[in-house]
Amino acid sequence: MTLRSVLVANRGEIALRVVRACRELGVRAVAVYSDADASAAHVRMADDAVHLGKSAASKSYLNEEAVLEAARSAGVDAIHPGYGFLSERPGFAAAVEEAGLVFVGPPSSVIATMGDKAAARAVARSAGVPVVPGSDEVSSADEAVAAAGEVGYPVLVKASAGGGGRGIRPAGSADELRTVVAEAQREAASAFGSDKVYLERALQGPKHVEVQVLADTHGTVVHCWERECSLQRRRQKILEEAPAPGLDPSVRSALCDAAARLAREVGYVGAGTVEFLVEGSGDAAEFFFIEMNTRIQVEHPVTEWVTGLDLVAEQLRIASGDPLSVAQDDIACRGASIEFRVNAEDPDQDFLPSPGTVEALELPGGPGVRVDTALMAGDAVPPFYDSLVAKLSVWAPTREQALARGRRALAEYRVDGLPTTIGLHRRLLDEPAVVDGGYDITTLETWLAGRSP
Amino acid sequence: MTLRSVLVANRGEIALRVVRACRELGVRAVAVYSDADASAAHVRMADDAVHLGKSAASKSYLNEEAVLEAARSAGVDAIHPGYGFLSERPGFAAAVEEAGLVFVGPPSSVIATMGDKAAARAVARSAGVPVVPGSDEVSSADEAVAAAGEVGYPVLVKASAGGGGRGIRPAGSADELRTVVAEAQREAASAFGSDKVYLERALQGPKHVEVQVLADTHGTVVHCWERECSLQRRRQKILEEAPAPGLDPSVRSALCDAAARLAREVGYVGAGTVEFLVEGSGDAAEFFFIEMNTRIQVEHPVTEWVTGLDLVAEQLRIASGDPLSVAQDDIACRGASIEFRVNAEDPDQDFLPSPGTVEALELPGGPGVRVDTALMAGDAVPPFYDSLVAKLSVWAPTREQALARGRRALAEYRVDGLPTTIGLHRRLLDEPAVVDGGYDITTLETWLAGRSP
Repeated sequence: MTLRSVLVANRGEIALRVVRACRELGVRAVAVYSDADASAAHVRMADDAVHLGKSAASKSYLNEEAVLEAARSAGVDAIHPGYGFLSERPGFAAAVEEAGLVFVGPPSSVIATMGDKAAARAVARSAGVPVVPGSDEVSSADEAVAAAGEVGYPVLVKASAGGGGRGIRPAGSADELRTVVAEAQREAASAFGSDKVYLERALQGPKHVEVQVLADTHGTVVHCWERECSLQRRRQKILEEAPAPGLDPSVRSALCDAAARLAREVGYVGAGTVEFLVEGSGDAAEFFFIEMNTRIQVEHPVTEWVTGLDLVAEQLRIASGDPLSVAQDDIACRGASIEFRVNAEDPDQDFLPSPGTVEALELPGGPGVRVDTALMAGDAVPPFYDSLVAKLSVWAPTREQALARGRRALAEYRVDGLPTTIGLHRRLLDEPAVVDGGYDITTLETWLAGRSP
Repeated sequence: MTLRSVLVANRGEIALRVVRACRELGVRAVAVYSDADASAAHVRMADDAVHLGKSAASKSYLNEEAVLEAARSAGVDAIHPGYGFLSERPGFAAAVEEAGLVFVGPPSSVIATMGDKAAARAVARSAGVPVVPGSDEVSSADEAVAAAGEVGYPVLVKASAGGGGRGIRPAGSADELRTVVAEAQREAASAFGSDKVYLERALQGPKHVEVQVLADTHGTVVHCWERECSLQRRRQKILEEAPAPGLDPSVRSALCDAAARLAREVGYVGAGTVEFLVEGSGDAAEFFFIEMNTRIQVEHPVTEWVTGLDLVAEQLRIASGDPLSVAQDDIACRGASIEFRVNAEDPDQDFLPSPGTVEALELPGGPGVRVDTALMAGDAVPPFYDSLVAKLSVWAPTREQALARGRRALAEYRVDGLPTTIGLHRRLLDEPAVVDGGYDITTLETWLAGRSP
């Protein structure tokens, strides 16, 4: 480990996670914070902390210059961006590199390639990895209808510059498509500053399955098996698990190999996640590459549970120029793990963000239970940032036992003072589609719509 | 699982541990409590609870009739005794059996045999398991000196009816032995109501290594590898780990096989621990049986970490008449785990028990960290019972990483309102003998004596 010190350019549970990995590796961890986070857990636990600016993310955690200046003033060797905020901005990664610091992540050029949808699809194609059938960019309704003939209905119209699930519209026929393209172009122009759109085949009730990969600077690329992340609301994952229930072994093997192949193709370095949609079942299931997240993922704990790897420690080793601590053959997937995202949101009020102060807190414990929380009793949830405040993850030898352990741990988890998604998870674990693992990316929204008044 | 409901005849973290296993298996868990524990965590988390009596253990958790009456009134199928209290009393186990209930543990006859030192040594000998060289009972100084010629100096004089490390005196020569025997007889008579004593060879700086076994009612006996438990103060373990550092693979294999053989010999059923002393190093190390604990052990989490087994769930399965969930060949020992006992004691005041109220609590979290605590913020530690209030255990792929994780987790652990042994553990993890794993059963007391004022 040549890294001596790392600026943790994030907040909340992921900042804590990085501080913990630094601690265990003997690396000095320097936190950053906004006005609202002056006494936050990630600041208290770090070896040192630098103030960034006002509470708004644009004035603090998204302020590239302030973060770089914090790194300079703290004299660190490297910057770990966590997830969100600056983690997938090629310009920021490049600025870090130019400042002579190590960016804990892939080279800025790789972030740029994988952040560009068309370029990412091209990488997948050269790696022999299937992509969702789709078109080039189209600039008119006529062009769109012609392209849809090739792609096949139903299609999705997507903004080329879009992301995070915004600007996506379905169309089931040519007539519908003509209307939708014009709307999509107007929305894209106003939301993303570019009216370019393209078409993609709309898959029918697919599952979202993603593969964790690790790549070091010595050319070794491994996969760490897959995660099932189909339980989503507004394209935000809420519960993830490993391994993916019901995934055929031959499909699983092909999927994981495809992810490693894609990472190799693009010259990947660091921890990354290759996301796929899987349609169909058994050994007839097909998978399609959708995107690569060039950073640590919120749901990385389920992979840590089943493989025994410390993914954040691997990131720091890779950033130090060290080889991976394991070879592909040594990465077994053992047992089953489930993660429950605890958001400061009120599921009974359409998931309204619910900032507030934690009046009392009781964390679940005992065997096979892990909590990653940035919230301690007395802490306030500020209204400025993402609503994810904690993650509960469980492990057991079998999926059935992991579900039982999840129910038990969720029953123990008590947060007084603000609404959270803990109760939603308790209810989800009684849903047949969750219990049998047959859920897909439409399941959660259908279920939520059904139970709304 | 034929058991529908279990009376958890204990308190504190082990009662919680049993309640958790019941929850996950769909078994109704009924707690018991004394006056002092009316609002304790194990009561709050159980499905139901029965009051036993006054706070003194003799009036509550040690009151066999009250516990049996609680089981009858709650209508449970079985009683889980935890550790301590009634867990190793053959008379209590027999009374449970006579009441038509299932005792979660071995048959009362096996508890009786293994609780009798001479009988237990005889079982070991018939199983071909080495015991510490020793004599039959001696009733005079002359007999003792004659016996010591066979056993070999230095010897320990032990009370036949003794236990818990009391009534043990060392003698390095015949002269010393003559003085010591008379003293030991007097002490034994007054402490245990019998002046019978015997001799045992005093091993030189041995290690305490124990083996977890599981045996079902279908004749299957497996071992779950070993635990190193040499860090002891007044024969009370304070830190335990798995696997045992530095144990030669051939010795390890012989040790684990010996434990399973002994369990088979005595007709064991349930979870049990076979304790050994190990003297010498490398493949020349010798091991000697000392005793068997016929119950779940405080330090069982380190075995759960490295094997992935849920030992309390296995106890309940066995008590239901179900076969073990695993075969010997499927029980791998993966990575390294360390447990730190958190006692409400003040290490700077000669470990004076320190009851009090928890004013603030921050539990460690993140990867590879498990907390078993019966203490939540606001809870009081009553002065009537054992001072163990929580256990922190960690896991990592290697022992070195587990030590780093332990340091990190101990740094995060905050209990305000009463002194605990957390700070002692932090200091222990910097001791060379702990870091290199070379410690033996004399190490902790030597170290404590050296640092005392």
